[in-house]
This record gives sequence, structure tokens and C-alpha cells, in this order.
Amino acid sequence: MAPSVIESMQAFWSTHFMLPSQSHVHASAVSEAIETARENVSMLLGCDPFEVVFTSGGTEANNLGVLGAAMICHAGSDPRDHAPGFPCSSHVPPPHALVSEVEDESVIAAAKHLQLLGWRVDWVPCDSQGVVSVEAFASRFEPTTRLACLQLANPVVGTIQPIRELADRSHSRGIRIHCDATAAVGRVPVDVRELRVDTLSVSAHRFYGPKGSGALFVRRGLDMNPISFGESREMGLRAGSENVPGIVGLGAAAAMTARCVDEAQATLQELCERLVEGLRATLDSRIEVLAEHVARLPNTVAIELATEAKRIQRTARQIVVAAAQSKSPPDEITRVLRAIGKSEQQIGCTLRFSVGWTTSREQIDRAVDLVADACEYASRA
Amino acid sequence: MAPSVIESMQAFWSTHFMLPSQSHVHASAVSEAIETARENVSMLLGCDPFEVVFTSGGTEANNLGVLGAAMICHAGSDPRDHAPGFPCSSHVPPPHALVSEVEDESVIAAAKHLQLLGWRVDWVPCDSQGVVSVEAFASRFEPTTRLACLQLANPVVGTIQPIRELADRSHSRGIRIHCDATAAVGRVPVDVRELRVDTLSVSAHRFYGPKGSGALFVRRGLDMNPISFGESREMGLRAGSENVPGIVGLGAAAAMTARCVDEAQATLQELCERLVEGLRATLDSRIEVLAEHVARLPNTVAIELATEAKRIQRTARQIVVAAAQSKSPPDEITRVLRAIGKSEQQIGCTLRFSVGWTTSREQIDRAVDLVADACEYASRA
Repeated sequence: MAPSVIESMQAFWSTHFMLPSQSHVHASAVSEAIETARENVSMLLGCDPFEVVFTSGGTEANNLGVLGAAMICHAGSDPRDHAPGFPCSSHVPPPHALVSEVEDESVIAAAKHLQLLGWRVDWVPCDSQGVVSVEAFASRFEPTTRLACLQLANPVVGTIQPIRELADRSHSRGIRIHCDATAAVGRVPVDVRELRVDTLSVSAHRFYGPKGSGALFVRRGLDMNPISFGESREMGLRAGSENVPGIVGLGAAAAMTARCVDEAQATLQELCERLVEGLRATLDSRIEVLAEHVARLPNTVAIELATEAKRIQRTARQIVVAAAQSKSPPDEITRVLRAIGKSEQQIGCTLRFSVGWTTSREQIDRAVDLVADACEYASRA
Repeated sequence: MAPSVIESMQAFWSTHFMLPSQSHVHASAVSEAIETARENVSMLLGCDPFEVVFTSGGTEANNLGVLGAAMICHAGSDPRDHAPGFPCSSHVPPPHALVSEVEDESVIAAAKHLQLLGWRVDWVPCDSQGVVSVEAFASRFEPTTRLACLQLANPVVGTIQPIRELADRSHSRGIRIHCDATAAVGRVPVDVRELRVDTLSVSAHRFYGPKGSGALFVRRGLDMNPISFGESREMGLRAGSENVPGIVGLGAAAAMTARCVDEAQATLQELCERLVEGLRATLDSRIEVLAEHVARLPNTVAIELATEAKRIQRTARQIVVAAAQSKSPPDEITRVLRAIGKSEQQIGCTLRFSVGWTTSREQIDRAVDLVADACEYASRA
């Protein structure tokens, strides 16, 4: 977390312990802080404040973006017709959703829940660069298609997806777009009007905010049903007492990100390039950068090496680097790398690196040395 | 929040920023901190650590306790039979739930969602003291009853409910008990084995822990389905990256509460009695303590005065005191006071006071003076 974000939250642990709904002179300060945070998030995303719904994190935001599309039908007389998202007797065939197969598990699992609620879901494949093309979606459009889910950027290989183009093709058919932007915010500028999405999720801890805090952009006028139940908060889309410090911290992180993301993008890009060049020089070119030929996040690079990735992880534990851990059920890295056509052997040799705003060139050089040493150690063992 | 709780969380905002699933020397410290918190909560509640599921707060815990009882049925061939909690074709009539009418809105609204999923729900009334009797439940038992929801204590009038007796009568019929203990923890000792409940919810910020953090006790072996979707965490019952500082803070609050609750109970009781005696002495007995003749929480007292409660709130804004705010839809106070048989006029004259571990006798005396002054001001105006 950014120190300024931690600092912004402090008063809301103690002095401003009230809830905004309480009757007290100090409660209005809490309300104001929440609305300031909402404005900060709206400025980061280019939307209106009342289009920002605070959640307990990226998972809840993605769940709400997907399952919130499943309307409760009050028309039928059969009680079974009242299940959320369940097709009314008069709505045959059932609604249809298209979901890219390289989505985060919180989107995939929510879409599987849509299936349990009676929806049909088709999974849309990507190409070898991780791109889920507009054509791959459009060729699967049906008259009953209501929802298309595509991430802004893939968190494993970094591929930036053609969201705006998908939205242009979808809206004319009455298909709404849910966009998981949790991997993109803080790394590239994100503007929901430019992207023309209907819902878009963010996760505070992905851009130096607190864990347990996130938000969903919900386009003005969009039909949504809540997925949590209780006293209505957040424009009727969420229940539960506000996590005031979490919201304030998210707002502070959003304000900081809005100010700094352009500069950060260039810095992150340079660091990632330095990492790749360093590894190429040290490892004698025995590396392959995945999704090398398309637009990628500036901070994320997945690299295939000649060495088993888990061995590098074990040897170079001073750096945090991700590798596939589980084939069955496949973890996120396995799932995405299979989708771009990698063999199990290639998947086992791939490491995902990511750099942050505070990463230094010295740390990059040290990481290169550690990985090179680990590779050499592995080749000798 | 307790200063020691704030302190316990600090390192997890910065140094220990990892997630427990990450590969790094520091990630194991995070895993250990989460498991320590789980042990602390389990010791507070008298259960095993693996029976504790961390949530984003009391609302999610109550939602999971209620909706987690709605099993996904895989037996049917009709896709509509796969909706969670929805009765399979072979399960006619549908499952039945009993829910006390003085539950928190997060239980009531979740039960209404059960109805949308095809369940039948009956609402169980309370008596004039706020007690929902075992007989009121038992007289509504049906062969299809699967779930009974009763709070441990009512947050408005403080009434402690006959949970253990209800559990004894219910379990022999295969009915599970969900108990909302969010108003009770920190005020009275809570032991899930003694209460014999199946699920029990707690909210960290109700006992000096952080907002945005809670837990659900789920009895070992109980069939449950998750209500959030993504990479499986928390024994498969929750998705989403762990809110590590929130969990650590909840654990610290639980440890403190386990140590101090017996002593706190006596202190809170004395403060509440002092408040009632002070108001009786100053206001010349024109007050009625609600639920006066039954076991109550030591920290909560609802008092009916001769003056409009909202006017007292407005005049005495230095104290935080709750009054009914909305008749339609009725807020929690209105709902509970109607349920115990109060008229709209009586509801409008009722204030709910609650005291805490750090409340002093001087503050009680000052509150008495402020309320008395406000009453006098109102009578003159």
C-alpha cells in the first residue's frame, strides 16, 4: 500500500468510527469522506460518482457485474419463474452469455453460476497472443445473447483486449459488456466512456489501496439486481455497513493513480524491458516473451524459460514471481497458458513477472541475477 | 476500534502486504497470521478453527448462513432444477424456512431471496418483551422445514432469545439453526456448542474490530453452498483475496473479547442501570424500559419517553442515540417496535441507548442531563 493511502485511512479507524447513517455530529464527516472517495474513483474511471458502487473487493465486483445482469422475473405465476435470471416461461429459449475463456476465476465461476440459474454460457477462445478477438465473440452472437464478459487486460500474459470494439459490436444488439479491469487499473489509463462498457470492476489492492475494498462501475440506467441482501446501500446494489476505512483508502489510491498513471506507465514499461533484456543477455536468449506481438500491460511479462519454473521459485525466494501450481483443477496461469496453446511442459517452464511503482532498476538487475543463478543451479543439479 | 486492534493490523498494511497464496518468504507469515486469527475467533466462540469462515462483515455472514442452506440440486434434468435451493421436481412440496420477524434486515432480506429461489418462508412473531418463543417456532414446524433463523439477542430492545431450546427442538427434526450473534458478541459470552447452533454470524466492528470484517461459524460436516464465486478460499465457502488486515484485526478483537467479556458484561450492566435510574430520577418516572422483564443484553436499553425521539436526537447531538427514522419502508427500530406491539406514537417516542467498554459513569451522567434538557426544551417549545 502507498504510505499516503495508509495515512488517509488512520482517522477512520478511531476518531471517525461512526457509520454514515448514524445520528451524530461526526457522522456527516464520514458521509463526506465516502462521497469524496466516490468522486475520486469516478474521476479515475471517467464516470459520474453515482455510477460507482463500493464492494468488498474485485471478486465481489466481478460477481456483481456478471450476476447483476440476471434480472429477477416477476411475470410468471410459477414460483420457479421468480428465480433471479431464470428464464420466465414466456422467455424461451433462456438468456445467453458469452465469456472469454481467459477471464479471472471470479468471472468464470460467476458465469457458471449463471448456468445454474438457467442461462446458457458459451466460452470464447483467445489466439496465441492471448487476444480474444471481436470476431470470436461476434461469431457466437445469438438473438438471446444478453451479456459479454471480457477483461481489459489479462493478468497472466498482459494482453490488452479489444473492449471498445466489442462494445461497439455488442450494444447495437442489446448485449451488455462486463469488463474486469482489476489487472489494468494503475498500469494503463482506464476511461469507461471511451471503452463504452456497462460494468467495470476494480480492486483497490491492485493499485496500492487496501485489501478488502473494490468497486464496480455501473452505467447510469443499467438494469441490475443486487447479490447481497440487507439494508440497502450503494444505490440499492449492496447491503451491509460501509467499510469506511476501506472506501477512504480506495479513494486515496484512486486519486493518486489518476495523477500518476501516465508517468507510471512509462516507468513500468522501461523496467519490464530492462528485465527482458537482462534475462536475454544472461540466459543467452533461451527465453520467450509471451504475447510479445500485441499491446500488453506495461508491468506484466510472462516468460518461458528452459528451466522448470517451480525450481526457480524455490531457489530465488527473495523475488515474488508467479508460476503454475496446479494442473487439476488448473490454476489461473495454467488455464491462460493452455488457452494460448502452450503444452504442459511449456506451462511448467513459464514465470510471470510483474513490477510496481516502487520497483527500482537495481531490483530488476538483482532479479535477473537471481533468476539466472537459479537457472544455472537447476541445470547443474 | 480498540487501539490494540489498530496496532495489530499495522504491519499488514505495509511490510506483510503479501497474499497467503503467494510464493515468497514473507507469505508464510501472512498465512500464519490468518490462522492465528482463526484460532482466536474459534476460542471466542468455542469451536474448532476450521469451523470459522472469514467474510466481509456481518451482512455477508448472515447472507451465507441463510442462503448457504439452499443446496444446489443436481438430480433433475430440467435446467431449472439446478437453481440453488430450488426444489427438484422430485422434491415437492418445496423446502420451508422459519425466520423470526425481529431478525436483522440481512437475515430477513436473505430469507426473502430464499422465497425467490422457490422456498416457502414463514415469519415467526415475538411477544411484548421481544422474545420469540420456542413454541412460536415449534407450532410452525412442517415436515419440509429445513431452516430456522433466530438471533442470539435483539439489537433494538436487547432481548436474549431461547436459542439452545430452539436448537434442541429443531435438530431432532432435521432443521438447521442459523443464529445472528452480531449484537451479542462482546456483550455476553457466546459458545456455539452450548447453543447447539449450526451457523452463527459475528461482525468485527461490533466488538472493537475493523469495519468490513466478519465471520461465520459453520458446524463441522454441515452441507453448505457458497454465495460468492471465484478461486475457492475459506474451506470452499468464500471466493476472493483475503482481507488480511481485516482478518488480523478481527482476530485481535476476538482475543481481547474472550479475555474481557465477563468483566465487561458486569460493567456494561452497571452503566445501563445507572442510565435508567438517572433518567427515571430526572424525568420523574415518565419513561418505560422496553423488554424490562426478560434477560437482556447488558449494553442495550430501549426507552420510551414522553417526548418525540427525533427532537431529542436533534437537540442532544453530542450523544449517539438511535430512533426510528422511516415508517415506510420501516427501519429496523420501527420494525422491531411494531413487532412487540408498540403504536406509531410510542415508536416515535422511543430511543435506543447503547454503552461500550470505554463509556464512563461521567458520560452516562452527562447523557442523562442532555436527554433531560432536550425533553424539557421540547416541552417548552
